[in-house]
Amino acid sequence: MTNNQNLTVVIIGSGNVAWHITKQMLHKKVNVLQLYSPHNAKTLAEEFNLPYTDNLSLLKENADMYLFSIKDDAYQDVIAHFPYQNKCMIHTSGSVDINVFQSITENRGVLYPFQTFTKNIDLSFEKIPLCLEAGNQITKEKIEQLAKILSDNYHFISSEQRKQLHLAGVFACNFTNAMYRIAKEIVEKNGMDFSILLALIEETARKVQRHAPEKVQTGPAIRNDKKIMQQHLAIIENKEYKLLYQTLSSIIQKK
Amino acid sequence: MTNNQNLTVVIIGSGNVAWHITKQMLHKKVNVLQLYSPHNAKTLAEEFNLPYTDNLSLLKENADMYLFSIKDDAYQDVIAHFPYQNKCMIHTSGSVDINVFQSITENRGVLYPFQTFTKNIDLSFEKIPLCLEAGNQITKEKIEQLAKILSDNYHFISSEQRKQLHLAGVFACNFTNAMYRIAKEIVEKNGMDFSILLALIEETARKVQRHAPEKVQTGPAIRNDKKIMQQHLAIIENKEYKLLYQTLSSIIQKK
Repeated sequence: MTNNQNLTVVIIGSGNVAWHITKQMLHKKVNVLQLYSPHNAKTLAEEFNLPYTDNLSLLKENADMYLFSIKDDAYQDVIAHFPYQNKCMIHTSGSVDINVFQSITENRGVLYPFQTFTKNIDLSFEKIPLCLEAGNQITKEKIEQLAKILSDNYHFISSEQRKQLHLAGVFACNFTNAMYRIAKEIVEKNGMDFSILLALIEETARKVQRHAPEKVQTGPAIRNDKKIMQQHLAIIENKEYKLLYQTLSSIIQKK
Repeated sequence: MTNNQNLTVVIIGSGNVAWHITKQMLHKKVNVLQLYSPHNAKTLAEEFNLPYTDNLSLLKENADMYLFSIKDDAYQDVIAHFPYQNKCMIHTSGSVDINVFQSITENRGVLYPFQTFTKNIDLSFEKIPLCLEAGNQITKEKIEQLAKILSDNYHFISSEQRKQLHLAGVFACNFTNAMYRIAKEIVEKNGMDFSILLALIEETARKVQRHAPEKVQTGPAIRNDKKIMQQHLAIIENKEYKLLYQTLSSIIQKK
């Protein structure tokens, strides 16, 4: 028996994050005892060949850790019906405070995998920064043990930092993806294929892996090329895209 | 002698694009006869060990192609002082019309490498989509010959398509990089390092290499998670970032 197999975990939730974490735990031989979800526990559990329940009162009692990966607004209800006290309870959310578990346990913590997860799109979990927080020393040790098993990259940060990081992720990921979608719309509307954008998208993300974004900013705004910016604004039909173009050009020029 | 060495080119310009194209031409054994730039021809030419001039009247006369990679607003002046008529003149700009050369040659064309170039940041040129346009058949053949030498990926598109593609590139690259910068500001202001964002940035760009961006959109806006969006707006201090957050969330929700 390895150390990993000694660590026993119950997973609460069955969304994208639960799917990816469960997959990585099993890959790393963590002993996942059970999976709980009110709705689709069965689907996820059968995929991974795990015991499951949709009934909180049937939750296994002696896990080292109860790992919550549920919607932010579901915590209150699940905690109200959680059958045990003082268990080690860990959540994975970017925006929920560690003290969400305050009423039920002192052994509370957070393991927030800072990544964009889409079900069935595989990724290399080892590279994901895991952002940890723990309410006491015993939980800190346990959560660090789990983090080390799952990823090469973990950090202890506060709930306040985590909220700010989550916001930063909206810009770096969700809004960036929205930029890709707008660019796709523009090329497709003009008889070109989205694939023509892929090398540019890849290179833009690759550049900042080694260089600060403010050092590698290119384009008409940073050059203050007013003529091109006017031409662009003249051909953008969508009003929100026009506002976006103006706001972002102004932001770029301020640095 | 290979075919590549048979093709003779004079480069007009010495910026980032000129640097990357010249590098790739030499790598592919294209015969670069000379480099012209009014200011820093010497620096670039000596780096590549090429003949150069800062005097347009000393331009070599018998090149198969004169490849222009200069600022958009410099074309008029350089063309006015160009010493020859009816040469094969090609530019590399996303936003300049092919007919910029109308007064001086019928053999005009465009080879627009659709990529973000930063001097001294190497990239794999073979993957760059080259967007071509030609004013007549003879130029079409010549430009296609050059494109095939330089990249595995070329497309003939119109001047109008090229302008739209250039605009799409501003969203997919320049504005995306601005998102990275904003995210960097947020994490650094809160005592975290930019490197914590890198796996997320990489994965966001990687995902759309195989999936349409509208299919892999994540985050509070697409989930219509009003509580989180309100929390985020409450912690954003910069007014332009707040406007950006609102505009982008609204755009994301419209799909």
